[in-house]
Amino acid sequence: MENFQFYSPTEFVFGIDTECETGRYVKKHGGTKLLLHYGSGSAVKSGLIERIKDSLHKNNISYTELPGVQPNPRDTLVYKGIEICKKENIDFILAVGGGSVIDSAKAIAIGALYDGDFWDFYGTGKVVEKALPVGTVLTIAAAGSEGSGDTVITKENGSLKRSVGSDLLRPKFSVLNPMLTCTLPSYQTACGATDIMAHVFERYFTNTSEVEITDRLCEAVLLTMIKETPRVIKNPDNYDARSNIMWAGTVAHNNIIGVGRCQDWSSHCIEHELSALYDCAHGAGLAVIMPAWMEFVYKHNLLRFAQAAVRIWGCQMNFENPAETALEGICRFRHFLHDIGMPINFSELGAKAEDIPKLVEKLGIGNGRIGGFESLSAEDITEIYKIAAQAEL
Amino acid sequence: MENFQFYSPTEFVFGIDTECETGRYVKKHGGTKLLLHYGSGSAVKSGLIERIKDSLHKNNISYTELPGVQPNPRDTLVYKGIEICKKENIDFILAVGGGSVIDSAKAIAIGALYDGDFWDFYGTGKVVEKALPVGTVLTIAAAGSEGSGDTVITKENGSLKRSVGSDLLRPKFSVLNPMLTCTLPSYQTACGATDIMAHVFERYFTNTSEVEITDRLCEAVLLTMIKETPRVIKNPDNYDARSNIMWAGTVAHNNIIGVGRCQDWSSHCIEHELSALYDCAHGAGLAVIMPAWMEFVYKHNLLRFAQAAVRIWGCQMNFENPAETALEGICRFRHFLHDIGMPINFSELGAKAEDIPKLVEKLGIGNGRIGGFESLSAEDITEIYKIAAQAEL
Repeated sequence: MENFQFYSPTEFVFGIDTECETGRYVKKHGGTKLLLHYGSGSAVKSGLIERIKDSLHKNNISYTELPGVQPNPRDTLVYKGIEICKKENIDFILAVGGGSVIDSAKAIAIGALYDGDFWDFYGTGKVVEKALPVGTVLTIAAAGSEGSGDTVITKENGSLKRSVGSDLLRPKFSVLNPMLTCTLPSYQTACGATDIMAHVFERYFTNTSEVEITDRLCEAVLLTMIKETPRVIKNPDNYDARSNIMWAGTVAHNNIIGVGRCQDWSSHCIEHELSALYDCAHGAGLAVIMPAWMEFVYKHNLLRFAQAAVRIWGCQMNFENPAETALEGICRFRHFLHDIGMPINFSELGAKAEDIPKLVEKLGIGNGRIGGFESLSAEDITEIYKIAAQAEL
Repeated sequence: MENFQFYSPTEFVFGIDTECETGRYVKKHGGTKLLLHYGSGSAVKSGLIERIKDSLHKNNISYTELPGVQPNPRDTLVYKGIEICKKENIDFILAVGGGSVIDSAKAIAIGALYDGDFWDFYGTGKVVEKALPVGTVLTIAAAGSEGSGDTVITKENGSLKRSVGSDLLRPKFSVLNPMLTCTLPSYQTACGATDIMAHVFERYFTNTSEVEITDRLCEAVLLTMIKETPRVIKNPDNYDARSNIMWAGTVAHNNIIGVGRCQDWSSHCIEHELSALYDCAHGAGLAVIMPAWMEFVYKHNLLRFAQAAVRIWGCQMNFENPAETALEGICRFRHFLHDIGMPINFSELGAKAEDIPKLVEKLGIGNGRIGGFESLSAEDITEIYKIAAQAEL
């Protein structure tokens, strides 16, 4: 196991009606003048925003609203948020929504206390030294941003999608009411589930040996997702299944299951170019990319892929031919994704094989390499896009 | 799943040589005048205390030493620590040791900011409202106190062992260097492993249905312990196995795997009377009590015990006779404990069957009941002690 530091000071408030406590938690964590940040439609229509406002009023917390966050959140709205924060001396940002809203809120939190352009931090390695505190009310189990220190933003001009991470960006509190996710369309639910599983696989495939505890914890999250996702696709209002998925989504990405081991993250990078170019859902892009990545890299550590097949997908180990077991695991993953309604190739996603050179170019790695498990060149990534383009069941 | 709140703001610093960073973390978390609290012998002899003092000096942190913490830490030393804190305006307590030292430090942390007797909080339900910040350097994987908000203290006058818990008692930081545990005698290592497994089982056996994510996370920790414990008993200086056990021990008890479900904890209560009366190791007492408790309660939810047998102990499910599977799981647990060198009955522990009435009386539940899984009366507990007294492989 490698040395690590783990710090997850987010206060999680989980369960039915917990959003009505939002004001109390804002107050507890020092917020007095809020930026209330959310998406469009559903959070307003469902009455959620009203319930949260009530809770803020009860706790004498003033707020300025900034709605309109889109999926694959844009820099343009972030700049608007930063301007409001600076002008109105905002001291706390409350994000109500999914990963897009929370990531946008974190970007505003950075920019509000920074004199330059917030984009300076994205994809550059520049270290975040200050940020406004952020709290969240989560409406979809997916990105894990409610417990992580990560934010991903898309630059509208040029469709660049870049990320930055810092413990300073971990939310002060996150309100998780699984009931709020019961009204999600199946497709979004499945996209979220895919994202959660991808967060675990990015950690699972590692070159660090002897990391049984985090292997087992990763498997725990995946086994849960394999059990619970089909249940919510079938019965969207299954509260218990929604609850298990919601806590799995948080545990999957606050990194308690990923510490002390080298992680990969190339599937996420490779996918980001798809959602940046086609504005597709990140989870849907991952459903297409991740099994293709697995097929490309599995020989790098055959027995780790066989372990995944046996422990996660319940395959029988073929001791005479472990490669067969490894591939069977990947095959079951793709079938699982198809069964929950995810696309499995470019055409189902709405992507085009002829764009592959453009996708690789936009990724911008030049002669560099990405990936902590198998190190990938631009040529390797081209191959992975090709596998993804043509994949079949 | 039940509603829950989860807040674990401890900063974990894990790996080789991390104790040399202690001073930096004390400073980061606001400590300037320290109470340096530790046990007797090994932390001094090994040079650990010296390395920590060096690190404190480098960071200009002054300290007063309070060594001498014993296993099953006593109220007498706690009173001494409280007096020092008040007299010298101590603003941070650094605990160097295992659960006993950390629990003693937490007790001092409560008492230092309280006008009455710190014992007022133990076993009474009285809520902790203030406490000095505590940091830890852990030397044994066992109690999980490095990540929990719990403290257990033994009252010297009367051998009462009582506990209290509060998020305010969660350490600000915990330094975890698995290398420090490589010199532990096998017996202590095994006691620690038993304690870790018991922390998981207390959460695993629940009446809350549909808690797959925490079931699976609990199983992940147990599977790790089953793999890694025999390895460190055989090769005490296996760093990787020590590392897996150390992180498992923290994850087992900071409650991330126990949220949203009713928990049991009667085995811990029943054991506390053994270690209070005979001053035996808590883990050794648990090795005797926990399988006995399982044998007494398994019919309360046969299929949950069968699930444990299959998923944790690798038993084949007997679908015609699930009780056989359930009992086989408990049997394997007891064999596992025996194989790592733990006592499995009263005589191996050094306890006496004739003391059973006294043990039950000291537990002091009168006509009340304990236990979140199966609710136990004094008569039930007597039966459990009897099973434990006579247990055989």
